[in-house]
Amino acid sequence: MANKHRLVVVGGGFAGVALVQSLRKADIDITLIDRRNYHLFQPLLYQVATGGLSPANISAPLREVFRKQKNCRTLMGEVTEIDAVQKWVAMGDQKIPFDTLAIAAGATTSYFGNTAWEEHAVGLKTIEEATEIRSRVLWALERAEISQDPAEIQKLMTFVIVGGGPTGVEMAGAISELARYTLKGDFRAIDPTKVRIILIDGAERILSSFEPSSSQRALKCLSRMGVEVWSKGRVKQVEKELLHVDRQGNMEELPAGTIVWAAGVKGAALGAKVASATGAAIDKSGRIPILPDLTLPGYSEIFVIGDLASVALLKNSDEKKFVPGVAPAAIQMGQYVGKIIQCRLSGNREPAPFHYFDKGSMATIGRAAAVVEIPWPKLKFGGFLAWVAWLLVHVSFLVQFENRVLVLLQWAGNYFTRNRSALLITHPTELVDDPKGTPRH
Amino acid sequence: MANKHRLVVVGGGFAGVALVQSLRKADIDITLIDRRNYHLFQPLLYQVATGGLSPANISAPLREVFRKQKNCRTLMGEVTEIDAVQKWVAMGDQKIPFDTLAIAAGATTSYFGNTAWEEHAVGLKTIEEATEIRSRVLWALERAEISQDPAEIQKLMTFVIVGGGPTGVEMAGAISELARYTLKGDFRAIDPTKVRIILIDGAERILSSFEPSSSQRALKCLSRMGVEVWSKGRVKQVEKELLHVDRQGNMEELPAGTIVWAAGVKGAALGAKVASATGAAIDKSGRIPILPDLTLPGYSEIFVIGDLASVALLKNSDEKKFVPGVAPAAIQMGQYVGKIIQCRLSGNREPAPFHYFDKGSMATIGRAAAVVEIPWPKLKFGGFLAWVAWLLVHVSFLVQFENRVLVLLQWAGNYFTRNRSALLITHPTELVDDPKGTPRH
Repeated sequence: MANKHRLVVVGGGFAGVALVQSLRKADIDITLIDRRNYHLFQPLLYQVATGGLSPANISAPLREVFRKQKNCRTLMGEVTEIDAVQKWVAMGDQKIPFDTLAIAAGATTSYFGNTAWEEHAVGLKTIEEATEIRSRVLWALERAEISQDPAEIQKLMTFVIVGGGPTGVEMAGAISELARYTLKGDFRAIDPTKVRIILIDGAERILSSFEPSSSQRALKCLSRMGVEVWSKGRVKQVEKELLHVDRQGNMEELPAGTIVWAAGVKGAALGAKVASATGAAIDKSGRIPILPDLTLPGYSEIFVIGDLASVALLKNSDEKKFVPGVAPAAIQMGQYVGKIIQCRLSGNREPAPFHYFDKGSMATIGRAAAVVEIPWPKLKFGGFLAWVAWLLVHVSFLVQFENRVLVLLQWAGNYFTRNRSALLITHPTELVDDPKGTPRH
Repeated sequence: MANKHRLVVVGGGFAGVALVQSLRKADIDITLIDRRNYHLFQPLLYQVATGGLSPANISAPLREVFRKQKNCRTLMGEVTEIDAVQKWVAMGDQKIPFDTLAIAAGATTSYFGNTAWEEHAVGLKTIEEATEIRSRVLWALERAEISQDPAEIQKLMTFVIVGGGPTGVEMAGAISELARYTLKGDFRAIDPTKVRIILIDGAERILSSFEPSSSQRALKCLSRMGVEVWSKGRVKQVEKELLHVDRQGNMEELPAGTIVWAAGVKGAALGAKVASATGAAIDKSGRIPILPDLTLPGYSEIFVIGDLASVALLKNSDEKKFVPGVAPAAIQMGQYVGKIIQCRLSGNREPAPFHYFDKGSMATIGRAAAVVEIPWPKLKFGGFLAWVAWLLVHVSFLVQFENRVLVLLQWAGNYFTRNRSALLITHPTELVDDPKGTPRH
């Protein structure tokens, strides 16, 4: 056993889990390290943020995922140091040696250097952020119900989402449904159907990675749902419940009770440790440029996969493009590295450079509305059919890990009743003025 | 509308909700104030603490509960002041006038004056405490898996529950099931079926409010599940992961990775404000002694109901006994006050003094094990039948508020698979040594 090849995987997201799963029959010792004890299905975080699903519905405990894969042990904790020459990673005072290392630490929210904004505009990358948004959205309405100051009420009933990518579009649509349908009739002094929802995007059009016609479709759909879209809007400053926005040249002050930040991501902080241990570069979005076989330059036994990796797309066009930071790409990278490791162990020739197979893109806007683009056969569609496609893809992802029939049932129930069952304001100390008696968080 | 009778209810627990619901057809203006936006089904908190249910499964948003009851508005916030003479309660700078006031603020965990223990021994009265216990239990096992120090591992695999009432018994049983069945096979270095679970109780026997034979039954059941019961054990000091216990004269130091406090409750802090506003007394458990019609002495229009009230039981025996702090008693008090208010409004004679109707007591110990006692017809039973009775009573409670079919399905699933779906370690900053990168909580 001591002679077995030792693979250490850092990060239990899509890339790390796909890698470990692809080696389920390999005669090696795998150690999977994560700061969390669960794999998180990030594409559905916006559902937690708007009360449609509970955190546990979109999380699979890593130990459960790998219970039967006996060649894998899972450790929860933080990688504090990496030694690429002596080949170990440290968790505190414990060193874990490796023969092969795969870094799959993912990405975090980027405020483009404005770290002070983080407190006022919540990102959407973790369970805690999702429940924080949920609490802020609901708490804003609670305060509006009590308030007798019209300006205050108007501010509290304004919800701003910064960033018009799929996450921002999904959040805007979900907040609209929450306020306009789920909470309709729940208040006595305010009318939640009168909320103002503003989606701010710096680009010419939302969903800029999609075809223009899909952006149009999404825009029309959002307008129908009462969402204002501010294209070419640049957020200059974020304060507590206040944004300063450059709207095509005009500076505008926008008071808003809830601000969600979906404008950008950057590579995880672990990237810096990888760089200092190996001399690797880090690009301006915090990602690590790697070779076409996903290894670090100079270290053929260290791979970087998933959102932390910056990999050029192999395309005939001259334009330099990169593999996008999406779940299917992360999974494909994990599986590719699994294949390389198996080839090396068996002495077979290594596979050709990593090639990202683009299965298409989708974004959902609300109940029964979505846009789908499939590159081959070239196909674009929207509306109910796109929403069903979106639902099927996401549910099939979920059931990979566990029997998540309940999620499907809950969604089916939500769809017909427009009910959202997880509308809790938790950890309210930050919110309630006098937190005496509330728990210590 | 301005002339309608104004009822203000403080607290949306069992008592407050029952009171408001009993007045659903009354032509009055009701204001329900709570610090939370949901009604919490506290008897099932231990299921959240052990990952069997998600917080949303046992919480019903108050606005949803009262959506259709148009004579009731709900306000979320803290009552900061009470004026019993001018008849208003204040939430910050806002005064809410009342004609009738019902205080139903409930109870919190009591450390019997040792407030420093709170940090080390988590109570079980709120969602946050339940998820905190869940995180601590799972995080202790995670640390044990990594540790190479046998004493540390032994400590981390020791779970102590202080208090042998129904909550303590239920927690001990549920932790045992979690470790011995759900997590079996999940770890590589440690064996979670080898955990040590200790239930400490100061009395001669656990479940001391039950008949001795039920205590015996529960004891036998817990022993079978590997729970050590330390009766007549007195906790003298609680430090971080360490208890000092007086075990029938011998002082014992007990290191334990997780300590749960289920030893006592006291009336909510609002009781002090009620006392200073009305001159009411507060007994040593923080409860307010009230008259047989549940009003405060000298204030016939101020009621105290639920766990905050101290009401003498009307019994023929000489022994002075009190209405117990359980959900059925709270509900009966709420309904009783609803009846009084209706009598007063219609000019009818007020009902006879409050009489607590004891429907019986039940405690569940684990999967398919429980004890049930019904006073009339005098009946005591345990085992599977008792568990089914327990389940039916609890599920029927839940469905009162919402269509909680999913909870039933989830339980059915859990029962057959021994699965627990909500095993997340959330808000880990307190737990992980280097919380960099984790959310701000």
